[in-house]
Amino acid sequence: MKIEAIDFFYLSMPVVTDEADGSQDALLVRVAGGGEVGWGECEAAPLPSIAAYICPMSHGVCRPVADSVLGRTVDGPADIARLSADVAYNSMDLLQAPHTMSGIEMALWDLLGRKRGEPVWKMLGYAKSHAKTPYASVLFGDTPAETLARARQARADGFRAGKFGWGPIGRSTAAADADHFAAAREGLGADGILLVDTGQIFIDDVERAAERLPALERSGAVWFEEPFAASALEAYGKLAKRSAKVRIAGGEGAHNPDMAKHLIDFGGVGFIQIDCGRIGGIGPAKLIADYAVGKGITYVNHTFTSHLALSASLQPYAGLKDHTICEYPAMPKPLALEFTSDHFKRAADGSIAAPDAPGLGIGISPAGVRKYLVDAEIKVKGKTLYRTPTI
Amino acid sequence: MKIEAIDFFYLSMPVVTDEADGSQDALLVRVAGGGEVGWGECEAAPLPSIAAYICPMSHGVCRPVADSVLGRTVDGPADIARLSADVAYNSMDLLQAPHTMSGIEMALWDLLGRKRGEPVWKMLGYAKSHAKTPYASVLFGDTPAETLARARQARADGFRAGKFGWGPIGRSTAAADADHFAAAREGLGADGILLVDTGQIFIDDVERAAERLPALERSGAVWFEEPFAASALEAYGKLAKRSAKVRIAGGEGAHNPDMAKHLIDFGGVGFIQIDCGRIGGIGPAKLIADYAVGKGITYVNHTFTSHLALSASLQPYAGLKDHTICEYPAMPKPLALEFTSDHFKRAADGSIAAPDAPGLGIGISPAGVRKYLVDAEIKVKGKTLYRTPTI
Repeated sequence: MKIEAIDFFYLSMPVVTDEADGSQDALLVRVAGGGEVGWGECEAAPLPSIAAYICPMSHGVCRPVADSVLGRTVDGPADIARLSADVAYNSMDLLQAPHTMSGIEMALWDLLGRKRGEPVWKMLGYAKSHAKTPYASVLFGDTPAETLARARQARADGFRAGKFGWGPIGRSTAAADADHFAAAREGLGADGILLVDTGQIFIDDVERAAERLPALERSGAVWFEEPFAASALEAYGKLAKRSAKVRIAGGEGAHNPDMAKHLIDFGGVGFIQIDCGRIGGIGPAKLIADYAVGKGITYVNHTFTSHLALSASLQPYAGLKDHTICEYPAMPKPLALEFTSDHFKRAADGSIAAPDAPGLGIGISPAGVRKYLVDAEIKVKGKTLYRTPTI
Repeated sequence: MKIEAIDFFYLSMPVVTDEADGSQDALLVRVAGGGEVGWGECEAAPLPSIAAYICPMSHGVCRPVADSVLGRTVDGPADIARLSADVAYNSMDLLQAPHTMSGIEMALWDLLGRKRGEPVWKMLGYAKSHAKTPYASVLFGDTPAETLARARQARADGFRAGKFGWGPIGRSTAAADADHFAAAREGLGADGILLVDTGQIFIDDVERAAERLPALERSGAVWFEEPFAASALEAYGKLAKRSAKVRIAGGEGAHNPDMAKHLIDFGGVGFIQIDCGRIGGIGPAKLIADYAVGKGITYVNHTFTSHLALSASLQPYAGLKDHTICEYPAMPKPLALEFTSDHFKRAADGSIAAPDAPGLGIGISPAGVRKYLVDAEIKVKGKTLYRTPTI
């Protein structure tokens, strides 16, 4: 079928704060073709991602993403991969392009799955969608008491696993951070799965990151996520060698499969975390799931936004029975919940699984989209290249 | 001094073609502070780079570049480095940010140099600006005869060194490519410095790239540039090991210093080519120049646009006497020449050097800017976030 239309919907909470909460805005993508529509979501920075879709061409390999996808034909997974390769080449000098393409690519899988009546994970070659153990993804409190309360709340909400991130960690002493790690452990309980995310705070300072290892180990943390900038491979590799029990995790910053592979091969991570909204979509993420299996490390999704993004992020490793941990946005802003009409329901044991439904299996709520829709317009040479579409 | 204003000027040729010629548009940046102005240039995709400057914040580490620079204080090189670090952290989830910051960073060096009456290379710690041997950067012709004519023309224009890029190379057989390499050698003459750029055409296919090595060696090519996608480190590393005489070159795609270091450490390049308009500006490029010296490989600028960008790109290695090759846009579009009032003049021996003048030493022509200025406007929630400024 021919890709007939691609529309971008920029949603935002009325007020966006500087907390590290990625659910405060969203960029939804609707792709129409063959009498059906599919939906996807780009991660982060709606306006630059829209600009990367519609901007005038700078030269032959700095073309807008639209040039490589609109009007093209998609009849199977191989066609989606071909479009991704075309975008990578034709937009090689347009840095934002992979984020833009990520949402389009997701929507193409959704569209194709709805057309065929097949879940995306089946089109990726999996026979079954295995249950995953979601971890509640929450931010560290400002004080250990606040962290303790959040950990208890996560447990009360039925999450055995909890990931604590950002907040004050790395901004003060290792001893102060240790109190937060201990509080998180106490709140989750002895059998809880404790995960820690420091949001690149140590940039590339291996010593400062390593100072946190003993306390992380004492608290029984399973992983130490994003100690460093996404591209600081040497620092990752050195820290991985110095950590006896706690594995290093990272990968959300990867905006192409190569970056994720390098984090595995040179950075020594034990958990590779892929955001389908950044790496180029579901196909590139599946390449990394396969690669992780081959390397004997664990694949994990990175998702801090909607249940549409959550479904997309589960597809690449839905069939990997032994890769069980999954990120679950436990406290998203209302926007992220309201723009979909379907939501994951956790089973009695707390688990979730990629839906056994056509495409991504998540419907869109037009009313929810309209409620948060941002009015935006981009004009170049007197011509309107983008205007917020209607739904 | 306080950074009082930052303005973006989007220039474009009336018609932009799909040839791989990066001088068809430009994004100029003007930074004002302390009663002085400085100028810089972002490489590629003006509209997304503008959007990355003014977009509404998505969350705490996906902020517009403006948030980290406008209103801040710059009194010396360390302040510029601090602002760059802030942008890297505060905009970590905004992929386009490094391209936007590149132009701002350049303009900050220019501003600081003009304020102090010092050339940028001196502020970088160099005692002297050494002469460089510019190579004419031209595209392969459609036929070997056309390539021959262009090589002869480069030589007639006083260039001993010539880089031939893109065009038909890699799109047909190795034998067909060999004819182009031989034609380029013939046109340049036996003592000419022949450089070859294949513009990522082999993606990550080591075998197809390696098929070109014998002909490149026969033609006496000094380097084989960008055989693969910017992030295909393994492919670079494998090809480097298979090439006896011809060194591999790459790096223009690096949008942070880590990426360039990885191309050296894991990709085995012999020449590291840095575009100051992409890597984050002059400071990050200088880090790579230092790193290259330490690793015993050669630093080269990547510049396909204006003489402002050319001056910026020479600064990071101006003081490195033994790193002599430099890219020189030999056939830019009129736009790239007309928006500056100063231009490099080649010496009798054909050489050029970073100017011994305050800042970047290149003046801007308001008439030239106005001639190619693109009228653009970005509105969000009824508020104009960007409108083409006046000059």
